[in-house]
Amino acid sequence: MISMNKPFESTLKKIKKFRDERDWKKFHNPKDMAEAISIEASELLELFLWKTKEESLAFVKNKKNHDEISDEVADILAFLFEFIDNCDIDIEKAIKKKLQKNAKKYPVNKAKGVATKYTKL
Amino acid sequence: MISMNKPFESTLKKIKKFRDERDWKKFHNPKDMAEAISIEASELLELFLWKTKEESLAFVKNKKNHDEISDEVADILAFLFEFIDNCDIDIEKAIKKKLQKNAKKYPVNKAKGVATKYTKL
Amino acid sequence: MISMNKPFESTLKKIKKFRDERDWKKFHNPKDMAEAISIEASELLELFLWKTKEESLAFVKNKKNHDEISDEVADILAFLFEFIDNCDIDIEKAIKKKLQKNAKKYPVNKAKGVATKYTKL
Amino acid sequence: MISMNKPFESTLKKIKKFRDERDWKKFHNPKDMAEAISIEASELLELFLWKTKEESLAFVKNKKNHDEISDEVADILAFLFEFIDNCDIDIEKAIKKKLQKNAKKYPVNKAKGVATKYTKL
Repeated sequence: MISMNKPFESTLKKIKKFRDERDWKKFHNPKDMAEAISIEASELLELFLWKTKEESLAFVKNKKNHDEISDEVADILAFLFEFIDNCDIDIEKAIKKKLQKNAKKYPVNKAKGVATKYTKL
Repeated sequence: MISMNKPFESTLKKIKKFRDERDWKKFHNPKDMAEAISIEASELLELFLWKTKEESLAFVKNKKNHDEISDEVADILAFLFEFIDNCDIDIEKAIKKKLQKNAKKYPVNKAKGVATKYTKL
Repeated sequence: MISMNKPFESTLKKIKKFRDERDWKKFHNPKDMAEAISIEASELLELFLWKTKEESLAFVKNKKNHDEISDEVADILAFLFEFIDNCDIDIEKAIKKKLQKNAKKYPVNKAKGVATKYTKL
Repeated sequence: MISMNKPFESTLKKIKKFRDERDWKKFHNPKDMAEAISIEASELLELFLWKTKEESLAFVKNKKNHDEISDEVADILAFLFEFIDNCDIDIEKAIKKKLQKNAKKYPVNKAKGVATKYTKL
């Protein structure tokens, strides 16, 4: 179950209703859900392909692109929230725990201001 | 701003504190954030590589794998929540709107029980 | 330079001519090329989304799908061959070397018949 | 069959020998191969994560990084060459055909010097 407040509970309900109206749950095993999340993540990335970092920032600042970006994010989240619900993950606990692990891999005194991967820190 | 309740607000605060303690905001432009989300999505997918659909379901059911799956999901979410916050996306509105668009691409009478892409429905 | 025989040399020439007619080399830095390869790899993966392993094998066996699969593979290769050429990689040496490294990570006596990742062998 | 000259034929032989010594062909259905290609493409992309376009060019120019880049490229190619062989794709024909299709989507007079996606040209 996703640990969430009432707005996100209703969002997850909409996602599941959409899936169940179409009898799609049978396709939504974890392997295919992970594929779907990956495919949608690539579609988000595609919005920034060939753009410089500055052009990417400008693209996001321009309100006329807001819907396009929102749509791609929504595609990722719809699959991700359902995956999380199917796998019984607690979002807050998971993130909190991972940040603690990352704090050890990337101690502030070594990692500050640099983007070096922890294997090379 | 992410539209969220107090628990997720505190999660986003932790994510931003982790980033800012390390002075990493300068790296977190939308293009690199989208790359990061995609890379982490592939790491989640890798948990299911070479597994059949049935083995994937069993993998997820087995409690000893819960932390590993949680960790990969947390990696995606940490970048995704920050991306959403940086781009000023409203998660609930975005998903609601995308489900409405998808309902037109995948009308129940045509899409029920089949996984055909809308371009071939 | 790609180590190749005359057919592949002519393929790389076509790829570079297509790029240079459109004055696109300026966009083809390694970061964006790696993004493009990843995005195209997701489009290939999408052909198999929601399909079981058996349905995937049948999809590939069916000649009417040959062009669709070919197209996605071509998209990946066009960017990958150019990336390889730009980075001066010798394909044969690179693969030979990596197979030798992999042989150590996956010794036959341990890896035979199982898909376990080397970190867990 | 991959249309290749003798060097690449011997590379494909090495790839298949490595696979068959380990009795791994049973895992190498098209769906999992496409997953593997995608996962390896993300690992290549990760070399450029958080780097600017200029830092990416410098990273590739620096000979000490050549092996690391080669390794990631080899990982993609090993799966891709086998996928191509399993699906009976002719690399040269596939790329030639796709470049012809792309020439229509991106006519020189419209596409020259710009990175706009064809849907928005």
